[in-house]
Amino acid sequence: MREAGQILLPKGFSFGAAKAGVKASGKPDLGLILAVPSTSAAALFTRNLIVAAPIMIGRTSLASTMGRIRAVLVNSGNANCATGTRGIRACKDVCAATAKLLGVSSQQVFPSSTGIIGVQLPTAKILSQLPFLVKSCQSSLDHLRSFAEAILTTDSHPKLASASLSSGVAITGVAKGAGMIHPQLATMLVYILTDVVVSPAELRKTLQSASRDTFNVISIDGDTSTNDTVLLLASGASGIKLRDCRDEFQASLNDVCRSLTEQIVADGEGVQHVIRLHVNGARTRGEALQVARTIAHSLLVKTAWAGADPNWGRILAAIGRSGIPVNPGKVSVMIGDQTVCRGAVAYDFDARRAHEELSKPQSRVEVCLGRGKSEVEFLTTDLTSQYVKINADYST
Amino acid sequence: MREAGQILLPKGFSFGAAKAGVKASGKPDLGLILAVPSTSAAALFTRNLIVAAPIMIGRTSLASTMGRIRAVLVNSGNANCATGTRGIRACKDVCAATAKLLGVSSQQVFPSSTGIIGVQLPTAKILSQLPFLVKSCQSSLDHLRSFAEAILTTDSHPKLASASLSSGVAITGVAKGAGMIHPQLATMLVYILTDVVVSPAELRKTLQSASRDTFNVISIDGDTSTNDTVLLLASGASGIKLRDCRDEFQASLNDVCRSLTEQIVADGEGVQHVIRLHVNGARTRGEALQVARTIAHSLLVKTAWAGADPNWGRILAAIGRSGIPVNPGKVSVMIGDQTVCRGAVAYDFDARRAHEELSKPQSRVEVCLGRGKSEVEFLTTDLTSQYVKINADYST
Repeated sequence: MREAGQILLPKGFSFGAAKAGVKASGKPDLGLILAVPSTSAAALFTRNLIVAAPIMIGRTSLASTMGRIRAVLVNSGNANCATGTRGIRACKDVCAATAKLLGVSSQQVFPSSTGIIGVQLPTAKILSQLPFLVKSCQSSLDHLRSFAEAILTTDSHPKLASASLSSGVAITGVAKGAGMIHPQLATMLVYILTDVVVSPAELRKTLQSASRDTFNVISIDGDTSTNDTVLLLASGASGIKLRDCRDEFQASLNDVCRSLTEQIVADGEGVQHVIRLHVNGARTRGEALQVARTIAHSLLVKTAWAGADPNWGRILAAIGRSGIPVNPGKVSVMIGDQTVCRGAVAYDFDARRAHEELSKPQSRVEVCLGRGKSEVEFLTTDLTSQYVKINADYST
Repeated sequence: MREAGQILLPKGFSFGAAKAGVKASGKPDLGLILAVPSTSAAALFTRNLIVAAPIMIGRTSLASTMGRIRAVLVNSGNANCATGTRGIRACKDVCAATAKLLGVSSQQVFPSSTGIIGVQLPTAKILSQLPFLVKSCQSSLDHLRSFAEAILTTDSHPKLASASLSSGVAITGVAKGAGMIHPQLATMLVYILTDVVVSPAELRKTLQSASRDTFNVISIDGDTSTNDTVLLLASGASGIKLRDCRDEFQASLNDVCRSLTEQIVADGEGVQHVIRLHVNGARTRGEALQVARTIAHSLLVKTAWAGADPNWGRILAAIGRSGIPVNPGKVSVMIGDQTVCRGAVAYDFDARRAHEELSKPQSRVEVCLGRGKSEVEFLTTDLTSQYVKINADYST
């Protein structure tokens, strides 16, 4: 597992970016990934019933090409969601224009959008930049980084992570996050590239497996986006087959996904503290997740964390309303390495040390339900005044 | 229905308040209501599985006295929750001491606590003030107001509401709210007093009926408290029987409860805008409530409201993740009297007027699901930086 800074370039891909004026700021807002003809694709999408036009088109295109994608076209600054048939038409138009420039079918261009909901996509602005965007694509780390910049909205920096296998296969992921982050089986915009040789069906299995303990166990604000997409592309350009490195590939893919989720959570809107919330002693993983989500979405818990306040009573109150029939006498809470509450009663602890633990950029809170042997590790954040400021002023 | 300012004094009750030093601020933190021997009582409690000692004692006392209560003892500044057997002992001790001073049984003293969770109740401080507190009780509006002051925590002002029936029966409610407000069948601390003649069993029915469309359809922050209590006392001192004024009594009780809920929501921590959220076109009332709660608890929706931002896309995204299988094509959203989204697509509307509507202290947002004929009107609030500040600094 390489650190976020040591980024690899999987074979078979090139990258481009452009400024189309979708973002009022004038920052880059168009990104393109080109992939060689042999590329397999697998994707996971949001579970929100209100889905953006690119989600509908991307899902259909993946099905009709049997998981064979040649390009990924992303715009930031506009989600193309709640834009009706006009929004679907706009999405098809930009895919078709890109396909024409590339000499591929329209279905082989996978679209993504992120930004404000309910505003029509400025198609003309995007169409006018496509020839430049296509020409700009190159297979270099600089171009990969430009792509990673172009897909951001309120993120403060690009998110990349890489892993390499002993066989030489490379995996690199690119993500954007920041707000409306509570993925359900998929998350935000995440593009993961590898050069392993694999069929789309096999690729899909590895992606589902990797998501279970990464994208599906994080939350910044509890709002599941309408545009969440995780796309995994395998160019096959390394010549190395998945069946010859299956376990190592899965472990490396998990590492890349885990690094991206950690980067997304740490760069959440207004986030000052990341909390690694471990819920154990549940009867099922579903129970553990339900308790973790109730705690992670409690405004009172999140604001206490903003103040690095070891106010475990709020955690306890959240557990009590989670819907899981806990026996209060068996519930305990730890902050860092200290038990702060046992049997739902205050436990003698060093409040200064607990405050210090919660003051760290990332701290650990553990909840034991005393009901069984299932557990989950959930990654979440505090809620600061900065989050409110960002989101009270976003669209107007 | 009288306005909040025109408060009545139901016959058969007296009120007292004292400063016991439970609150570090030195403000009044002990309140007492005394009731005549004929008084009937009915109560609703929090559905949180983590409940405070006074909830356990109060529930048991109401059962053992068959709904006959002579006194209500409330402290603010400490919730006496997550305090274990020692907390239960402390609660019993203060009830017993009060009962001894009054010459009644310990079970006839109904206890309530509100404040921080997980800190032992400072029993000695409370016991030392009880003789003064009991002596201070008088049947006057000034004493009623002193009681209303003594039960506050982060509330900015006391909450009272009254109604009178043509027969002369009076109903007066006293409440405190502010944070951890998302009641489930009960709410915060609410005491409603009337002088109608009624049995405890009949009284309970009127309270359940009144709560359905008042205390159960509000949320400030989605956090259901461990101490929520609604207590309704009927002294019978008017000599007028419930059966001679049943419909008028129920309507008046509903009015008092509605006024108290509106006062609680408007005085929520950091609240700048109250939203009257009307969800209709649901198959069942439960569906409508589920959608209303998902919208009311969305951080992105609440922060948009803080900015008076008509960003209906966030409302739509919340509906889409609510768990109700809506057909997006049938969903519409209104802000004030304007349709802003129809069939999950932007509708041509005057953004300035929508912004003005949301800038008012109380505004109206309507969601139609297009699935059926059930509906709910839910009262909720925006989320401001002030809420975060209050709750990031509360216990430390």
